[in-house]
Amino acid sequence: MTQNIYDNPDFFAGYSKLPRSVDGLDAAPEWPVLRAMLPAMGGLAVVDLGCGYGWFCRWARANGAARVLGLDVSEKMLARARADTHDAAIAYARADMERLELPASSFGLAYSSLALHYIEGLRGLMAVVHRALVPGGSLVFSVEHPIYTAPAEPKWSSADDGRKTWPVDRYLDEGARSTDWLAKGVIKQHRTIATYLNMLLGLGFTLARVEEWGPTTAQIEARPALADERQRPPFLLVAARR
Amino acid sequence: MTQNIYDNPDFFAGYSKLPRSVDGLDAAPEWPVLRAMLPAMGGLAVVDLGCGYGWFCRWARANGAARVLGLDVSEKMLARARADTHDAAIAYARADMERLELPASSFGLAYSSLALHYIEGLRGLMAVVHRALVPGGSLVFSVEHPIYTAPAEPKWSSADDGRKTWPVDRYLDEGARSTDWLAKGVIKQHRTIATYLNMLLGLGFTLARVEEWGPTTAQIEARPALADERQRPPFLLVAARR
Repeated sequence: MTQNIYDNPDFFAGYSKLPRSVDGLDAAPEWPVLRAMLPAMGGLAVVDLGCGYGWFCRWARANGAARVLGLDVSEKMLARARADTHDAAIAYARADMERLELPASSFGLAYSSLALHYIEGLRGLMAVVHRALVPGGSLVFSVEHPIYTAPAEPKWSSADDGRKTWPVDRYLDEGARSTDWLAKGVIKQHRTIATYLNMLLGLGFTLARVEEWGPTTAQIEARPALADERQRPPFLLVAARR
Repeated sequence: MTQNIYDNPDFFAGYSKLPRSVDGLDAAPEWPVLRAMLPAMGGLAVVDLGCGYGWFCRWARANGAARVLGLDVSEKMLARARADTHDAAIAYARADMERLELPASSFGLAYSSLALHYIEGLRGLMAVVHRALVPGGSLVFSVEHPIYTAPAEPKWSSADDGRKTWPVDRYLDEGARSTDWLAKGVIKQHRTIATYLNMLLGLGFTLARVEEWGPTTAQIEARPALADERQRPPFLLVAARR
């Protein structure tokens, strides 16, 4: 089973202080690009895999979704999502993504933000999602970029002239990576871009768009610390259709 | 116009000694994966963009292609391709890929091996290719992988423990990269994976398969120098359909 790091007290305490936890979607710099990959929300049934505090669930409803199901493995995240949501058309449920069951042909959009790189049995989950989408339904997700997850030592190096470089190794050796981020020993699954895309194609999805997110000039002016992220993309964003 | 480095005497002399120049497709370690992405050749009309010495053109005919058009910008490459080919169903022509014209709906396969990363106006060329394919026709190509082309200094670094790492920077800053490989000042165009894929999707192609090539265990046993290529993939391989 996938590690449930979000219920680790240290991790949860750190995560709950991140800008995207405090201020929601608009504090996530990749959100404008991810949003542009979404279908129109009007009348859609939406499932959010790894809904966290429910920011996207509430946004989907505010933009016209008919009903939203937010799923997460973390009781702590769901408790706050429920406390922050006052809308009978949004339901939250605890789910182990490795054993998820969803009714067939019942959603127009499956969405996931920065959750799928924790999942060991991703192909099984994507098969469940494919079956749960209506024909023509959309899958839109972000994950940590494979360039970001690959290295044995995922830390910037400084070149002689002061430039920062990202030391890629083990890119083609997929599997678990243990990193210390908010807590010690956070386990993520490194997969190549090819694996993500061919998994979807093999399940019958059609690819619609792929983005390797990096900050815009305006975003860097507003938050100079983002500049390094142009050296290598931190996030991979994918839109596909059943 | 794209630099015609293949007609540079130093580059041509070096290139003509590479294993893949001397021994053809079977000396290219990525060939088994690229071959598996190809449609059945039987009866196909094939165009090869950057045909070099014509190894693929002859392979396609030997495997049943009805006719093959090999295009290259290099007179020297074409001269040797013609000298090595004795088959009236294979034609070679000199072409500037930035200004290519092809008849509409006339090919079942457009193929390109390690040539498209030299092309500045790639979108225009891909539009020509899309129009030249019959509906359902295939585009299969390899390019240098964007992780490989990105760095300002594309050379292995050694970590303290002796591991090799590939110092990625400038990944999201697309454009020309000047490297010294066989000759000084070889100009390649760095593009992200997202740019390659979204360019095809935007032109109406459907993506069929994406591979980030690295050597197999058996290939590394036969050629130990290949082992480093598993740290970061040297080639990106894409199959798409009109």
